[in-house]
Amino acid sequence: MRPIGVFDSGVGGLTVLRALRAVLPEEDFIYLGDTARLPYGTKSAETVARYSLQCAGALMARGIRCLVVACNTASASALDTLRLRYPDIPVIGVIEPGARAAVAASRSQYIAVIGTEGTISGGAYQAAIHRLNPAARVAALPASLIVALAEEGWTHGPIAEAVARQYLSPLFAADDGASPDTLVLGCTHFPALAGAIRNVLPAGVRIVDSAETTAAMVVLQLSADRASGAAGSVRWLATDGAARFARASNTFLGEPLHAAQIDIIDL
Amino acid sequence: MRPIGVFDSGVGGLTVLRALRAVLPEEDFIYLGDTARLPYGTKSAETVARYSLQCAGALMARGIRCLVVACNTASASALDTLRLRYPDIPVIGVIEPGARAAVAASRSQYIAVIGTEGTISGGAYQAAIHRLNPAARVAALPASLIVALAEEGWTHGPIAEAVARQYLSPLFAADDGASPDTLVLGCTHFPALAGAIRNVLPAGVRIVDSAETTAAMVVLQLSADRASGAAGSVRWLATDGAARFARASNTFLGEPLHAAQIDIIDL
Repeated sequence: MRPIGVFDSGVGGLTVLRALRAVLPEEDFIYLGDTARLPYGTKSAETVARYSLQCAGALMARGIRCLVVACNTASASALDTLRLRYPDIPVIGVIEPGARAAVAASRSQYIAVIGTEGTISGGAYQAAIHRLNPAARVAALPASLIVALAEEGWTHGPIAEAVARQYLSPLFAADDGASPDTLVLGCTHFPALAGAIRNVLPAGVRIVDSAETTAAMVVLQLSADRASGAAGSVRWLATDGAARFARASNTFLGEPLHAAQIDIIDL
Repeated sequence: MRPIGVFDSGVGGLTVLRALRAVLPEEDFIYLGDTARLPYGTKSAETVARYSLQCAGALMARGIRCLVVACNTASASALDTLRLRYPDIPVIGVIEPGARAAVAASRSQYIAVIGTEGTISGGAYQAAIHRLNPAARVAALPASLIVALAEEGWTHGPIAEAVARQYLSPLFAADDGASPDTLVLGCTHFPALAGAIRNVLPAGVRIVDSAETTAAMVVLQLSADRASGAAGSVRWLATDGAARFARASNTFLGEPLHAAQIDIIDL
């Protein structure tokens, strides 16, 4: 059975890969992190679409049968382009699964989304939530520094909480039920700071991310076309910085990697 | 008189351009920010050298007579390569001027340097300071989040100070004269946070950056080959995101730009 390809601008997509391996333990995966050109979150939609096509091309050349875009910014800017280019395989992004998770979790249907500048300014989450529930109210705001904190490994403690508070407290200030009851972590880096974010939110606000819902959608798409037998493997590709990639794997993948396991490729 | 070319990974180099225009008001400049591929600070030395050659090539094609590498990471990784490729024009980086400023400012010759991961791990500041004074003691540490704070515009206030304190207080904890007496801002983004950094340092520590010393070195190199007459102009080039570039100009250049003034080019 051919492998499932997963790409991200860097290491944040490892949170999605982790969820995929949990539900599809017998599948082989190829994970590509475009570490030479990260972050995607501050780049224009056109540039992100061009880079995404190159990532997908590198994975297609390695024979994948399904493509997971494990990056919110790329999902927001490139999913339609990727589906047009590769009509013969399922192409699954993280935005629609994240929107589904939010609409399912929210009682009030007043939903907040934080993400990179590119994800938020493109309005993809807002549109995906409104496709599922046209009456939903969505507050979306960019939170770039949370990406930087996750990459630096400062995921807990007073600085992480102060940054989360600075972004979130204007949104969640109202005490009278006029605040969102659900927060979407609209960037694959953000689950690393879920604890700090939890600590600055009012009690009762639900935090959702795309990882598990995306994995569930991949399972649906594969349907009967599933690998079985021995435990699956992962092949690791990056465009720069194997040592840095390996260091980040504990934070995002939850297990250590060694730099020697990561092949550096050019796109 | 042909223009002076200045490049950086993004907008931080505008602090250097500002110092250059102050001492060379009659020169024409071309500034190139490689905004599509920033940051350089987390990329490998080989990738930074390759990108730097492409930036320099784009400026050479536009007829510059002097090249200023207004990026610490590129100066650390690519200066020798650039000088070999372009032996006929002066190529000036920011590391050696920064080292000179530090050695001149420090009484104790115990000097601290903060910069990006790429700048610090390459050891370029340490080497440049030791070339000027082999007996100097240098403590160097990466401070990536300060770049993110500068780009987000969070340059003042409690979060900026908490981040600066987290990086710097281990270095400047000693009360008995065993701490550095000088801090080099070894990244062109850091002058935007100089006030916050000042507030968390012990009294008496001197803060130096490369901008003015680099400008002085360019003046020295140009010698008699100086433009004169009318006020010089600046041509603005970037590889992505004209609106974002223009927004950042207040922080780093100290004056506003409009997105329409910035030409987007491919490298």
